[in-house]
Amino acid sequence: MEQITRYIEAHKEEFIQELASLCRIPSVSGNEKALGEAAAKVEQSLSSLGAATEVFEAPGRAPLVYAEMGDGPRTLLVYNHYDVQPPDPIELWSSDPFSPTIVNGVFYARGASDNKGNLMARIHAVRSLIQSGGKLPLRIKFLVEGEEETHSRHLSTFVREHPETLKADGCLWECSWKDPHDRPILTCGLKGLCYVELRAKGASHDLHSSYASIVPNPAWRLVWALSTLLDTDYRITLRNWMKEAKPLSDADKRTIGKIDFDGDALKQMYGLRGFIRDMSGSELIREYLCAPTCTICGLKAGYSGDGAKTVLPAEASAKLDFRLVPDMTPEKLLHALRRHLDENGFSDIELNELGGVMPAKTDCEDAIVKAAVAAARWACGKEPIVYPVAPWSGPLHTLCGTLGIPSVAFGIGNAGSRDHAPDENIRMSDYYEGIRFMIAFMRCYSTI
Amino acid sequence: MEQITRYIEAHKEEFIQELASLCRIPSVSGNEKALGEAAAKVEQSLSSLGAATEVFEAPGRAPLVYAEMGDGPRTLLVYNHYDVQPPDPIELWSSDPFSPTIVNGVFYARGASDNKGNLMARIHAVRSLIQSGGKLPLRIKFLVEGEEETHSRHLSTFVREHPETLKADGCLWECSWKDPHDRPILTCGLKGLCYVELRAKGASHDLHSSYASIVPNPAWRLVWALSTLLDTDYRITLRNWMKEAKPLSDADKRTIGKIDFDGDALKQMYGLRGFIRDMSGSELIREYLCAPTCTICGLKAGYSGDGAKTVLPAEASAKLDFRLVPDMTPEKLLHALRRHLDENGFSDIELNELGGVMPAKTDCEDAIVKAAVAAARWACGKEPIVYPVAPWSGPLHTLCGTLGIPSVAFGIGNAGSRDHAPDENIRMSDYYEGIRFMIAFMRCYSTI
Repeated sequence: MEQITRYIEAHKEEFIQELASLCRIPSVSGNEKALGEAAAKVEQSLSSLGAATEVFEAPGRAPLVYAEMGDGPRTLLVYNHYDVQPPDPIELWSSDPFSPTIVNGVFYARGASDNKGNLMARIHAVRSLIQSGGKLPLRIKFLVEGEEETHSRHLSTFVREHPETLKADGCLWECSWKDPHDRPILTCGLKGLCYVELRAKGASHDLHSSYASIVPNPAWRLVWALSTLLDTDYRITLRNWMKEAKPLSDADKRTIGKIDFDGDALKQMYGLRGFIRDMSGSELIREYLCAPTCTICGLKAGYSGDGAKTVLPAEASAKLDFRLVPDMTPEKLLHALRRHLDENGFSDIELNELGGVMPAKTDCEDAIVKAAVAAARWACGKEPIVYPVAPWSGPLHTLCGTLGIPSVAFGIGNAGSRDHAPDENIRMSDYYEGIRFMIAFMRCYSTI
Repeated sequence: MEQITRYIEAHKEEFIQELASLCRIPSVSGNEKALGEAAAKVEQSLSSLGAATEVFEAPGRAPLVYAEMGDGPRTLLVYNHYDVQPPDPIELWSSDPFSPTIVNGVFYARGASDNKGNLMARIHAVRSLIQSGGKLPLRIKFLVEGEEETHSRHLSTFVREHPETLKADGCLWECSWKDPHDRPILTCGLKGLCYVELRAKGASHDLHSSYASIVPNPAWRLVWALSTLLDTDYRITLRNWMKEAKPLSDADKRTIGKIDFDGDALKQMYGLRGFIRDMSGSELIREYLCAPTCTICGLKAGYSGDGAKTVLPAEASAKLDFRLVPDMTPEKLLHALRRHLDENGFSDIELNELGGVMPAKTDCEDAIVKAAVAAARWACGKEPIVYPVAPWSGPLHTLCGTLGIPSVAFGIGNAGSRDHAPDENIRMSDYYEGIRFMIAFMRCYSTI
């Protein structure tokens, strides 16, 4: 390991330059040229490791980069993506989002954390191992897609068409972050998601509000319908819906019991007066990680500019995000929601699905999780925190759920990395830790 | 009367040119130059009648034009305004809003109906009467303000400071319209208004919706609070609020009983499937005219653009318009609403008043109403419809309520006049009818 450490030390500058070069490409959905350039650069980096690479291209789809190399008792699939969120609102960036900038050991660029930094740290780990005379202890397969930020809309087809190619014993998922106390968080699953829009319609155009005593108001219809979905304790009231949630396993409970979650830090960071139902301690972290949700993400009706406008809106809409836990599915949610609206007298409310993804979860005492715990402990010098499920979502089920592959996520971000926001960043020290983690993880996973 | 009719016939072109000249001035709130020009033009038109005029100017206030002339057993106050609504959305106009255009006998311009057309028809009536050798049968006082479209914010001070100047037996209010069957509508009062904004606040900035199971969501708080204000039959549920509504008088009931309100025409015009509580007939018109309302005019929270964004909003707000009937007041509404929110567990919801005006009402069998009915019947050749109260609002209480002056409104608009909207218009035939109405009305009111 000493030799590897020396190699990493000697090549830090080169690694950061290579990461910066990838982050200069504005590989945002819709920019086909940039997506193609980013895919090509990723393919180069992977083939420079000596991997057999393949770029899967198809009309209307960002290229999928695949690479495989190494041998050993286990096969590890590594999932990342080279596409990034749009940089908007661009005026809030302290420096250009596509001109990587280093200030006080912090690397700023769109994609620094999500997900180019994580991808390159893994590639640089393999390079460091090989170049310093080591040998890959397992077979490794990289799958790097370019549509993660736009719901991985072609991934399921690819998985269905290439089950043998993607076959593996375990998967290292794209990313994770450190908590506010710099403890690495490992996650064993992701919540699912069903994103819908509810829409109520009234007159053919906005009317003067003098008609309000006789003409139905779609804004009221929407408010009444919404108010039946969640009680004022934030408990979802769809009939039989909560019964779809699979009870936590003993392993989940044990794992959650070990989490020392700092609610006060969260309150302070986000200016909160308190949590839902005044929760704290183990209840707070259990609900955060494991509870299904129903969130109003947006409301829109009538006039919302400055001052007063006496208008009776013609239309009102709400965007709702339901997070799903096993065994909930987007299909079941849509069915339960439509039925609920109809049964409660709101069959006039339109329901449109805007996106859905299944929940996915690995047993948190699985070998791959144990390997990640050991590797993170060694690389970061701190006891990692294991989340049986992370409260966010992603195409984990599409890839690992479908293929039956256990997975774990580790990443180089921290609590202030601002993924999806202006001034996205990583600490360079975390980048090098990420390289060390990957080397240790491959070794642990090959033997555990 | 024949001589007057000949005079009107001979001067139609001149009248329309004078109206067009006033409509060319973009006297929108904020455009001080245009407001001053419009006030000056109105003053000229009034002094050309031989009236004693006065322009009341004060810093930060659009000029108030006052004129008085004539003698007789009664004094009539005539209220109008020369300011207009902004022309936005300007791209929806078929011709320039400030370049009056006549197509097929219809005069298009911002202010054509609201309120320059009504004002000029009244001035042209006095001119026609005098120039054809007649004599004003009463003392007439014109009050023409320039801030009606911005809540007449200096009118109450002016009224308080000039009670003797404004003293009158009755008032002809600014405008009214014909119904879809071209029957002139006379109104004896206006609903009051209290316009408020409710606002809920959460985290210091929008969060990722993965926090939804533990962080309170202001959009839910707002929806729950709103849903307690009105039941699903659109009945206001503020405690004791409906008791503030003064019962209808027998005269009101008789007057409403005579109204043949065409609900089907309204449904068709606005693409409605039905009315609130499936109302029809006399219930429909009674509720339309006489019921207090609570209207969601606007909703705003989080993300409402295209597609999905998984955001937990930091803030949510609603604009609400409460129409008031006697003896409700904006102050009482604010008190009842705040108390309701507090009593229902929503003391966290901010309540901001954005404007208020008192309801006002004249007995619908008052002499001034009778005079207007007779004059409208003669001028329009149809039986007018009398609304004991109109469902819209205006500074009627500020002027007539404060001074104890009975009032009635007649106007030259029709059901398609598009006040406040693109392509505002009047039919020229209605303009000449408006002149004839005014002459007849002055005569009737002086003798009735």
